[in-house]
Amino acid sequence: MAERIIIIGGDAAGMAAVSQIRKGAPEAEIIALEKGTQTSYAACGIPFLVGGEVEGGIEQLVARSPEQHRQTGLDLRTRHEATAIDTTARTVEVHDLDGDQRFTLEFDQLLIGTGGKPIRPPFPGIDLPFVHGVHGLDTGARLLAAMEDESVQNIVIVGAGYIGIEMAEAFLHQGRAPTVVEMASQPLTLLDPELGALIGDTMTSHGLDLRTETAVEGFEPGVVHTSGGPIPADLVVLGIGLGPDSQLAADAGLDLGVSNAIVVDDRMQTSVEGIWAAGDCVESTHLVTGQKVHIALGTYANKQARVAGINIGGGDARMPGVLGTAITKACDTEIALTGINSAQAAAAGFDVLTHSITSPTRAHYYPGVSDMTVRLIVDRPTGRLLGAQIVGGGDSAKRIDTCVVAITAGMTIEQILDLDLAYAPPFSPVWDPVAVAARETMKRR
Amino acid sequence: MAERIIIIGGDAAGMAAVSQIRKGAPEAEIIALEKGTQTSYAACGIPFLVGGEVEGGIEQLVARSPEQHRQTGLDLRTRHEATAIDTTARTVEVHDLDGDQRFTLEFDQLLIGTGGKPIRPPFPGIDLPFVHGVHGLDTGARLLAAMEDESVQNIVIVGAGYIGIEMAEAFLHQGRAPTVVEMASQPLTLLDPELGALIGDTMTSHGLDLRTETAVEGFEPGVVHTSGGPIPADLVVLGIGLGPDSQLAADAGLDLGVSNAIVVDDRMQTSVEGIWAAGDCVESTHLVTGQKVHIALGTYANKQARVAGINIGGGDARMPGVLGTAITKACDTEIALTGINSAQAAAAGFDVLTHSITSPTRAHYYPGVSDMTVRLIVDRPTGRLLGAQIVGGGDSAKRIDTCVVAITAGMTIEQILDLDLAYAPPFSPVWDPVAVAARETMKRR
Repeated sequence: MAERIIIIGGDAAGMAAVSQIRKGAPEAEIIALEKGTQTSYAACGIPFLVGGEVEGGIEQLVARSPEQHRQTGLDLRTRHEATAIDTTARTVEVHDLDGDQRFTLEFDQLLIGTGGKPIRPPFPGIDLPFVHGVHGLDTGARLLAAMEDESVQNIVIVGAGYIGIEMAEAFLHQGRAPTVVEMASQPLTLLDPELGALIGDTMTSHGLDLRTETAVEGFEPGVVHTSGGPIPADLVVLGIGLGPDSQLAADAGLDLGVSNAIVVDDRMQTSVEGIWAAGDCVESTHLVTGQKVHIALGTYANKQARVAGINIGGGDARMPGVLGTAITKACDTEIALTGINSAQAAAAGFDVLTHSITSPTRAHYYPGVSDMTVRLIVDRPTGRLLGAQIVGGGDSAKRIDTCVVAITAGMTIEQILDLDLAYAPPFSPVWDPVAVAARETMKRR
Repeated sequence: MAERIIIIGGDAAGMAAVSQIRKGAPEAEIIALEKGTQTSYAACGIPFLVGGEVEGGIEQLVARSPEQHRQTGLDLRTRHEATAIDTTARTVEVHDLDGDQRFTLEFDQLLIGTGGKPIRPPFPGIDLPFVHGVHGLDTGARLLAAMEDESVQNIVIVGAGYIGIEMAEAFLHQGRAPTVVEMASQPLTLLDPELGALIGDTMTSHGLDLRTETAVEGFEPGVVHTSGGPIPADLVVLGIGLGPDSQLAADAGLDLGVSNAIVVDDRMQTSVEGIWAAGDCVESTHLVTGQKVHIALGTYANKQARVAGINIGGGDARMPGVLGTAITKACDTEIALTGINSAQAAAAGFDVLTHSITSPTRAHYYPGVSDMTVRLIVDRPTGRLLGAQIVGGGDSAKRIDTCVVAITAGMTIEQILDLDLAYAPPFSPVWDPVAVAARETMKRR
């Protein structure tokens, strides 16, 4: 009898594995269970959808619809929730939400791609309907609809992380000036304070009311209570972060690790043989520190699904360590970081050398030139790059990739200065800003 | 007595060494000889100046004027030409062009930064005044002035390399539609033919008359004679390339290497101890092939000057190998390459695997998305990246730096696929185009 493979979750972590599984095990029966109605959508696009920047609307965020998946021959069951996994009997309990029927499916191998869920601290009133997490296309549709409602004027965003910043820009695009409440002393706490301050300046200069060092205390209709007093609110968006949705795995007795993310080995296998997991529900290994981390990124979900799919199909692939590379923008300011920041480096026991430089993005005489700040985090004794951060104008942030490759290759700042990086006046100054940062940091060793 | 160091040439290769020399040898007497009137200017900016894109005009291209250099205490003598070097007596013969005096200067160490000169094949009529090489700010000024002259309508560019393409775009900016004559079957012959064809398409779609496989046979006032017949011309620009200006070094008996560039070791010392050279007049070592090459780039001049300056000052620095990384644009199409192309790889004895992919530059739903083509040149047995080429829309070309670092680190395409490259909808699709190219090339091994 053909092997049966069950996939739980119809987003990237599950669906991106299918083609790999088919390549390795073309005879296998694959059943995919998705409790919602949508598959393979770009959650990262939601802020831009809400901001009205996605021409063609919400459908554009769907990379592959359920119908398209089915056309490939996949047995995809939407509105089917996996409610329990029996790792001994090797079965999944399924709840058909529309028919309200429950049944059991046997599996030979299982891939868990249950994803993440917005962190919702137990503030009083957090379940009020005007408080929205950012999760799934439904949220996107709801928030976009709210932009048509003129009575929605006072918007409060809780948390000035990536999602908070991107949602703030989205509301600005829609002619609203939201208030952003952040417990820490700066937005994007993964940035070293010097660069975090630059983001704060940008946000306020664009008309946002940024309130740092302000703790949310609770919600009541029309108001957010904070340590700095009440703030009127017609709509609240939570941008506190995304935790792993690992309850199903935990109930099945699978090992959980950091932040309750599912423990997997580098082949994406959980603590039970033949049961695999991928995406926002699993933990990763940090390439610089070797520590386990939970970082929810669409790129990891896709990579992990590819690795899991190859291994489920009988191949052998390994998930590399991660650097937590992230990139975003706050209005006209681009932001990127990779590796570890100064505080993380110190905590990990490194003798940390950090330095920032500010450089033009292009030849100083070329139209469209702007400034960019590059900060390098370096292991002083060896000169090895541990992390990098960029804040700047147009065309600055994606240069973080130079640092991504350098960190992965274990390069020193001396080796970075030697790189034959691309130069022409429309693209860079003669010394690329990353090389300038390396050179100036070298002087401080 | 303080050591005397003479620098020949007032552009980047010479001037960028000064601060390094001073750091290492603060007591040294430094004399810089420049036969022209300008110093430290951005030759790479000339096409953009001619195109009218440099706000503020020609002065913007001068990074540091002679006066500014002198204010730092440098004994800089403009309009002073070094006419001979005696390596035994350790003297330089100097011609003061304005005073028309000749004198001799002794040196302890010498840095030759004579730069490059536009290649001028011995075509009949090449010295006619309407035929211009692109060299120095004077050319820039002359060509910019010609743009004010309505009688200059028929412009012919000889050669569709970087300079030819950038000059063509400059004339387009000024409302002229030049004819570009190229001997080869495509522009930018360093690109593999598939990508070279894309550039040809772009150029013609913007109104340029591109004539490939067409050889220039000579010039007469008002006309360029070619293998494809005569072309009317009020102005001709040579974009055939830049050779080393090494005659002075050759006359002094210094060893010349590839393309008659001055032979230097990795400390930038010539074949005579204490005589150094840097910039467009020297040869480099290619990082992939280990072969000597002559590649004239402003970035190399600056790096070499830094290395030479440190060594002249008694330190120890080494010039790394080069990858020939280049980046430019043809109107709205960006172009970049690094490492070696398919033909060079085959000639160097590699078992070559090449593949191209075309990917969106951003999330497909994000405004401003365009296409970019990435071509990888790979050593088939090991999977090691040998070269990369990018042709695409906005924000595509500078991604070549990912490949620059990967080639330098000796990475395989498998390792490139594993890189934690930055993703967010405004900046990249989930799989970065370079990673997509690695993945698709892997499938063909």
